[in-house]
Amino acid sequence: MNHSPLQTARYSYEPKLPMILRSAMNEIIAVEGQATTSAADQDKIKALFPNTFGQKEISFQKGENNAEVKKNVVGVILSGGQAPGGHNVVSGLYDALKKANPENQLIGFLGGPSGLTDDKYLTFTDEYINEFRNTGGFDIIGSGRTKLETKEQFQKAAEVCKKHNINAIVIIGGDDSNTNAAVLAEYFKANNCGVQVIGCPKTIDGDLKNDDIEISFGFDTATKTFAELIGNIERDANSAKKYWHFIKLMGRSASHIALECALETQPNVCLISEEIEKNAMSLSQIADYVASSVVKRAEKGMNFGVVLIPEGLVEFVPEVKSLIAEINDILAAKGDEFNAIESIKDKIVFMNKNLSAESLSVYSILPEGIQEQMIADRDPHGNVQVSKIESEKLVSSLVEARLKELKKEGKYDGKFNALHHFFGYEGRCAFPSNFDSDYCYSLGYNAFMLIQAGCTGYLSSIRNLSKPATEWKAGGMPITKMMNIERRHGEDKPVIKKALVELDGKPFKYFAENRDVWAVDTCYTFPGAIQYYGPESVCDLTTVTLKLEQSN
Amino acid sequence: MNHSPLQTARYSYEPKLPMILRSAMNEIIAVEGQATTSAADQDKIKALFPNTFGQKEISFQKGENNAEVKKNVVGVILSGGQAPGGHNVVSGLYDALKKANPENQLIGFLGGPSGLTDDKYLTFTDEYINEFRNTGGFDIIGSGRTKLETKEQFQKAAEVCKKHNINAIVIIGGDDSNTNAAVLAEYFKANNCGVQVIGCPKTIDGDLKNDDIEISFGFDTATKTFAELIGNIERDANSAKKYWHFIKLMGRSASHIALECALETQPNVCLISEEIEKNAMSLSQIADYVASSVVKRAEKGMNFGVVLIPEGLVEFVPEVKSLIAEINDILAAKGDEFNAIESIKDKIVFMNKNLSAESLSVYSILPEGIQEQMIADRDPHGNVQVSKIESEKLVSSLVEARLKELKKEGKYDGKFNALHHFFGYEGRCAFPSNFDSDYCYSLGYNAFMLIQAGCTGYLSSIRNLSKPATEWKAGGMPITKMMNIERRHGEDKPVIKKALVELDGKPFKYFAENRDVWAVDTCYTFPGAIQYYGPESVCDLTTVTLKLEQSN
Repeated sequence: MNHSPLQTARYSYEPKLPMILRSAMNEIIAVEGQATTSAADQDKIKALFPNTFGQKEISFQKGENNAEVKKNVVGVILSGGQAPGGHNVVSGLYDALKKANPENQLIGFLGGPSGLTDDKYLTFTDEYINEFRNTGGFDIIGSGRTKLETKEQFQKAAEVCKKHNINAIVIIGGDDSNTNAAVLAEYFKANNCGVQVIGCPKTIDGDLKNDDIEISFGFDTATKTFAELIGNIERDANSAKKYWHFIKLMGRSASHIALECALETQPNVCLISEEIEKNAMSLSQIADYVASSVVKRAEKGMNFGVVLIPEGLVEFVPEVKSLIAEINDILAAKGDEFNAIESIKDKIVFMNKNLSAESLSVYSILPEGIQEQMIADRDPHGNVQVSKIESEKLVSSLVEARLKELKKEGKYDGKFNALHHFFGYEGRCAFPSNFDSDYCYSLGYNAFMLIQAGCTGYLSSIRNLSKPATEWKAGGMPITKMMNIERRHGEDKPVIKKALVELDGKPFKYFAENRDVWAVDTCYTFPGAIQYYGPESVCDLTTVTLKLEQSN
Repeated sequence: MNHSPLQTARYSYEPKLPMILRSAMNEIIAVEGQATTSAADQDKIKALFPNTFGQKEISFQKGENNAEVKKNVVGVILSGGQAPGGHNVVSGLYDALKKANPENQLIGFLGGPSGLTDDKYLTFTDEYINEFRNTGGFDIIGSGRTKLETKEQFQKAAEVCKKHNINAIVIIGGDDSNTNAAVLAEYFKANNCGVQVIGCPKTIDGDLKNDDIEISFGFDTATKTFAELIGNIERDANSAKKYWHFIKLMGRSASHIALECALETQPNVCLISEEIEKNAMSLSQIADYVASSVVKRAEKGMNFGVVLIPEGLVEFVPEVKSLIAEINDILAAKGDEFNAIESIKDKIVFMNKNLSAESLSVYSILPEGIQEQMIADRDPHGNVQVSKIESEKLVSSLVEARLKELKKEGKYDGKFNALHHFFGYEGRCAFPSNFDSDYCYSLGYNAFMLIQAGCTGYLSSIRNLSKPATEWKAGGMPITKMMNIERRHGEDKPVIKKALVELDGKPFKYFAENRDVWAVDTCYTFPGAIQYYGPESVCDLTTVTLKLEQSN
């Protein structure tokens, strides 16, 4: 391996733990708090989790801990998309486990949850883990998207745990993976497998968030990386003064990333999917909204700007959502006929003939390229691949068309040149910020504390995060507390409630109060690259979202 | 203005000057070295620059300088595309000028060279300039692409200088802008205008480089920003293990950016346009070359990778160059007929009919989207807009097609999923690295020293750059020394020779020696974000290219 200078330097970074976790293991006690219920649908959740429902909150506090030091063999799994800091969760877990008892073992299952069921693994050593401290990526053991859901998988998992004498599994993942962690915990407990399950909240998307999870790890680093690039582009726009940049940002289910980036960079426009859905905005209303910023800036002689667009946008526009549903229905009903058509142009003609008048009116205002994207690539179920739709190009073409009309009407007299960007993969594997380095290490360390305290079906919880690490609180929260029942693929399922951007929350409100000025004036802020050294004011700040959420 | 924490912190950064420039002004003397000639075509260059040809090299050294302290009014212009550090050139110039005589004035012409001829300007104050120290962008006075070439422009410039009592102009720009600086210097001298002209070497592309200019400013910061993103994507590729990322990098005329990024990140493949041209590679040979890496990695179970592609690639592929030339000819000859065709599909049909058999064979292997890009958007002269061709998608589709053939032949049994990226605007306005902050500040400071020494037609030259700033050498080089005659738009023109990647240079050779291993194994290096604080090993390194060039 050829290490960059930063990588070499980051190896010697010592992540900051909450004060309580810096004590010796026998000076920390797990204190039980209130018994919990669930976010909603309590009877149904209770029935599904008879053995793990209603457990008590845990917090770690100073005290004399005389519990016998047992030997632990712990398995760890990385699940789903990459997020900066995953390696630190693993190294925090490893360090706690070795500190408690040098004979403890940490086993990493390879390539995600399937590593557990297929018994593909490695055993961690100091030497191996030291290569990954404070670095980005999930390459320490790889990740995967297999879902642990079926009884067969659970039985397999139990067998593999038994084989390795594993007494606890730590699952590092997003809302779905932690839901599955809870189900697995219930299964292990119901079947007396003697295997605890602890989850850790990961996702750059920021949609795994609630009263007990202040932020999911990776969100801080990913948004800082995107904000660095957006700030650079803003500065370029303000220097060259000739382009409108349309920037799509990863995050399909929620617009937290776009909102945080907007708070950090103050672009001219940032679309928030949740607001668009709530106001049932049409594509042409969206185009009008963006175009109004273009027009007003042109009047001031500024034919440039920056627009942020959340990846999931189109699914939140009601008329597009209906259109996509209708296309999916048509493809399901007349798939053979459709597939037999050779050219993409003829496929579009076919679609035009089969769509309802309402959907056709939406489909026909889409630029040709987007019409193609909607029907060209389809997922394994034959459905429209929403993630392939270049919504940054969609929005800019609609805006361009609107500007042409306005020009004809004499209401706009500027120049409009659009450039497009998509940021996602650029931020998922960055070196974790100091915040994510500290937070993740603490989550992992704390996960072991929960194991030692005998917990199962808990999420590792570190809180009070807008304060310095010394003031962070450590504990655990039953995963069932965060659950409700949702309809997924035609079935009622217990799931952790996904956190969307709250339109009455402080971050959105701050944005909404300021955006009209940002839309017209040039109020860009340039965050620059993530700094790991230097002044605390630069290096140890977490997100604006969290700061606003925790402000009074 | 809302400043980010980093921006606030960067204001207090003190750029490092070469030791000699840290002395008091009256302790620095300009020492004349050898008389110069030109890079080639000496008689022609001499004839074109009778007053400024053959001037002597200048170096600044310790000595007693008793020259009378005059009042200077200096104008400064930012020309062409943004490059990190432009603000530091201006602030270095300003600080030197104020240090020499507090009554000196610096005037900034707005929006590029046209600011000079249109007399659009601002006068710098401490308060104003302090807002821009150590920040990215060219927004301090804006930039522009107007070329100062005509006699009318020169006369206008002379009038404006006279009006403001300007005795020197500093032009911060690339090869073309510095060529024009030399022509302007010659004009001013021939006409006894009493205005000196000094150039500063700017361009992220790195193609303004020769024995006297070790590196153009901005190249360091831009390539570090791109390398940060490439490293993050590599780590993502190696974690998710399911995508091949095709990354296009800015830089049309030369592949220095791609090469430097490859040296910093060790991707699986990096195409170098200069090599492709030299070997007269065809598109299908390029596809074979990339596909061979995909195949070999698939054999080892690795269905992922990273490919770097210089923006200018297609213009260096001989058969595509011919194709583009032929399309331009057809558009010139049958433009009306072509423009009358409505649909893009029918335009392609028209093109198919009119191309020679040879060009048709190239055009027809292009993916449909690229065929469209080649003829859809045209520049103001009606020519193909090469910069709009998405060569990252072109290469990946050709590779995909090749892999399908290989699969049929039983020679490939992997999975191939491609993702595409283009990095350019993300790096042009980043906060300058410490290297660029120091180098640019020194260039600007040094430009004033050249003015004070009475020089004109010189480029500000700071050398020995792979050493610490204390060991840097300061001086000036006549711009005519770097010139030769080239045929441009049907005319013989004196121009600064563009520096392409030298295939027998050390940077390329190092790359060529290592790339076969990188193509098959996973040797990724992750540079991470630019660091401005912390260990010198992380913060003060310049490019690998320069390090290799200056190694023994």
